[in-house]
Amino acid sequence: MSTTAPPHPVPSLADLAARLREEIGEEAVSETPAPQYAGDRAVRAAEGTGFVLALPRDTAGVQTTLRLAHETGTPVVPRGAGSGLSGGAVPTDGALVLGLERLTAIREIDVLDEVAVVEAGVVTADLSTALAPLGFFYAPDPASARLSTIGGNIATNAGGLHCAKYGVTRESVLALEAVLADGTLLTTGHRSLKGVTGLDLTQLLIGSEGTLAVITAATVRIRPLPVARRTVVARFDSAGSAAAGVNAISRSPVRPAATELLDGATLADIEAHTGSALADGDSALLLIELDGYGIEEQSADLVAVLTAAGAEMRLVPDEAEAEHLWELRRSGRGSGAGGHRLGEDIAVPKSRLAEIFTALSEIGDRHGVATSAVAHAGDGNLHPSLALPSAEGEAPGPLPPAILAAADELVRTALDLGGTVSGEHGIGTAKREWLDLELSPTSRGLQQRLKAAFDPHQLLNPGKAL
Amino acid sequence: MSTTAPPHPVPSLADLAARLREEIGEEAVSETPAPQYAGDRAVRAAEGTGFVLALPRDTAGVQTTLRLAHETGTPVVPRGAGSGLSGGAVPTDGALVLGLERLTAIREIDVLDEVAVVEAGVVTADLSTALAPLGFFYAPDPASARLSTIGGNIATNAGGLHCAKYGVTRESVLALEAVLADGTLLTTGHRSLKGVTGLDLTQLLIGSEGTLAVITAATVRIRPLPVARRTVVARFDSAGSAAAGVNAISRSPVRPAATELLDGATLADIEAHTGSALADGDSALLLIELDGYGIEEQSADLVAVLTAAGAEMRLVPDEAEAEHLWELRRSGRGSGAGGHRLGEDIAVPKSRLAEIFTALSEIGDRHGVATSAVAHAGDGNLHPSLALPSAEGEAPGPLPPAILAAADELVRTALDLGGTVSGEHGIGTAKREWLDLELSPTSRGLQQRLKAAFDPHQLLNPGKAL
Repeated sequence: MSTTAPPHPVPSLADLAARLREEIGEEAVSETPAPQYAGDRAVRAAEGTGFVLALPRDTAGVQTTLRLAHETGTPVVPRGAGSGLSGGAVPTDGALVLGLERLTAIREIDVLDEVAVVEAGVVTADLSTALAPLGFFYAPDPASARLSTIGGNIATNAGGLHCAKYGVTRESVLALEAVLADGTLLTTGHRSLKGVTGLDLTQLLIGSEGTLAVITAATVRIRPLPVARRTVVARFDSAGSAAAGVNAISRSPVRPAATELLDGATLADIEAHTGSALADGDSALLLIELDGYGIEEQSADLVAVLTAAGAEMRLVPDEAEAEHLWELRRSGRGSGAGGHRLGEDIAVPKSRLAEIFTALSEIGDRHGVATSAVAHAGDGNLHPSLALPSAEGEAPGPLPPAILAAADELVRTALDLGGTVSGEHGIGTAKREWLDLELSPTSRGLQQRLKAAFDPHQLLNPGKAL
Repeated sequence: MSTTAPPHPVPSLADLAARLREEIGEEAVSETPAPQYAGDRAVRAAEGTGFVLALPRDTAGVQTTLRLAHETGTPVVPRGAGSGLSGGAVPTDGALVLGLERLTAIREIDVLDEVAVVEAGVVTADLSTALAPLGFFYAPDPASARLSTIGGNIATNAGGLHCAKYGVTRESVLALEAVLADGTLLTTGHRSLKGVTGLDLTQLLIGSEGTLAVITAATVRIRPLPVARRTVVARFDSAGSAAAGVNAISRSPVRPAATELLDGATLADIEAHTGSALADGDSALLLIELDGYGIEEQSADLVAVLTAAGAEMRLVPDEAEAEHLWELRRSGRGSGAGGHRLGEDIAVPKSRLAEIFTALSEIGDRHGVATSAVAHAGDGNLHPSLALPSAEGEAPGPLPPAILAAADELVRTALDLGGTVSGEHGIGTAKREWLDLELSPTSRGLQQRLKAAFDPHQLLNPGKAL
């Protein structure tokens, strides 16, 4: 028996499962869910946690599921692809896990209105694949785009590599279809880019991590594919110098589509697991993508700016090589593969990147933890990696105290620099301990009252995010 | 005595005024406010409405004002420059009008973080003026930018001419300082472009028209000035053909910074009040601004696309002439100057622009009302003008029933086309009658519960927006 199957389902869960089977179909309900439903990519449910899984096939099925959960007072954990990194989709004991993975229709694509209407379970990259023959794309591109779903992206306001130019997920969502805790359908927003009708429930639902309603579909903004793309590599003698290069770009009129800062340890890690020669001592890279009109002018301005900032510059004219470099970037999870590793997600005002890189290194030294980091530098979002080797034959277990202590110090440093606890992964369960450092009691109290306004019985994703 | 001075201040208002004088200063309180405080640019308070005006000089003064209003159970009407067009800032009887016009500090400009921290009373255009020497600008540009304030823009989620490319006000606001109904200070949001910490109170406050809290300052995103700008004029034989031109742009990779559609009647009106030769029968214009890198490539693509769509194209190489054309556009309020006139604000999915122009003309004919319209065509936002001549010597009064009936039919048509009751002016008092046509009882009920979560005693801008 899988460790994630409920060993002793409480009667009410079994009753709920039986009623769900009758109403949304035998195949849509499981009392012994497969292991992947027991957590996300970072956090697992506690051993022995009992939960039931419902996978309704459409919005009406989601309404039915929520209505029955409401009638039985059952907590509901909504779930996209489970690719989250903060525990937002982790089952709690006695909960109904409501997976949206079967809601996969792209209901509509309209290039004249520049919108697509997609269901929550559509894999993010699949939407751009569907749009490409029409000359369009969907801009939000979390690194998980080939796994994660539009619904999950919206629930976490997912970021990615192209946010400084194209915005985070929030900027691409115009309207939502969602289901409230009692099964009532709610539609929000507009199909036009503009619209100011009362309080903006669309915006409030984005990033609410399933605590207010379950998103079943969205009207998203699509954009024409850029007429040109160009990858540029700038090598600096250190991460601090690369951060100074980011400042130099800020002072210029060039705004890259992506500006990724990879420090020396990250480059060494990529080299170790891919064999691609990227590392060179402590030197760091800015991996930059330009796109749109005037690509030659943009390149020339960028080269001038970064050369003056001390970089050794290389334009990558070959598309295949450029794509390979971006693949390498996506594979860069930082040092510590095979051992204990924590991938963090903080953001700082982007002028403070050099300081957070320095702090990361000092914190690692102080706690005896190996550190590295890659940053979405254009928006100040940093993914530090904190790692320790594991002992020979050691079973995977909780993270060592030194890593946790280093992470705590790092998050506090980001806040001291004017930054935030989470740039793009969300709070889930993993980051709730730090919420009070960033949010005032006034803010947290308001958030609880908003939660109660949507979900008075506290059934939706309890214990998460807020 | 001004008609706007409270003829018989109720005792509690007089008491409140006295306490306010003690706490925020004699000069900051008026029981006989100047006429401009009795309304906005479209809606006036009812004759004889009694209200007190407070103009605190800083955030602490706003807190004190709200605390005293809260203690005395006095409704509060927040107010920026009073340039709104939907009645959001109109005093209600017995209210305290809380003007933010003295909070005019630009607290900080940081080009490396690409942010400015500004107080609510800063006039929108003044921010871009301050940024220009640094090579930056603030993108949101409602037509009222030389009058309206950042705080008012945020409270209404103001739009403007450049939203299809740069977003509405919402997309440029990162963090807020606001005061709750009881005087408590609330700070929300982040200085970094990314940040996902709990429910997004920043986004919920934007566009809430003063019903949830009083915004006192904001951290806004600033952007580098484009390296080039180019104005292009495309003349079509009708508004419908111009709308087809908008569709042709949508199918292309060109995304102008502004795409304004002026119909024949609007051009005739501009010609009549400025003497500039613009009209030519029923022909309509797309007045387009391109900006950024590759301006020649952009121009060439645009000319090819619109020429194929039947337009007669003209590039405007001369900056002074371009600026003159944009001034003329801003002066175009539509036919009916000197008579009865209603300026509407609706939006439709942008592929439906031709249909709404046709409907406007038919509705005008049916009700015997002169119509014209200008559209922010890139985002489907239309400002129709509905007008009737006034009789010789007739005093200004309420709008004739024919105009009101035509407006009602027009709003309903916009909704039938998948559009919205208000594209960018907000609901205020002027558009509340139509809310139920657009929003479900579920949505309106939720909005009322969110309002209660922020403002349980219903003191902030009662009777507006929701």
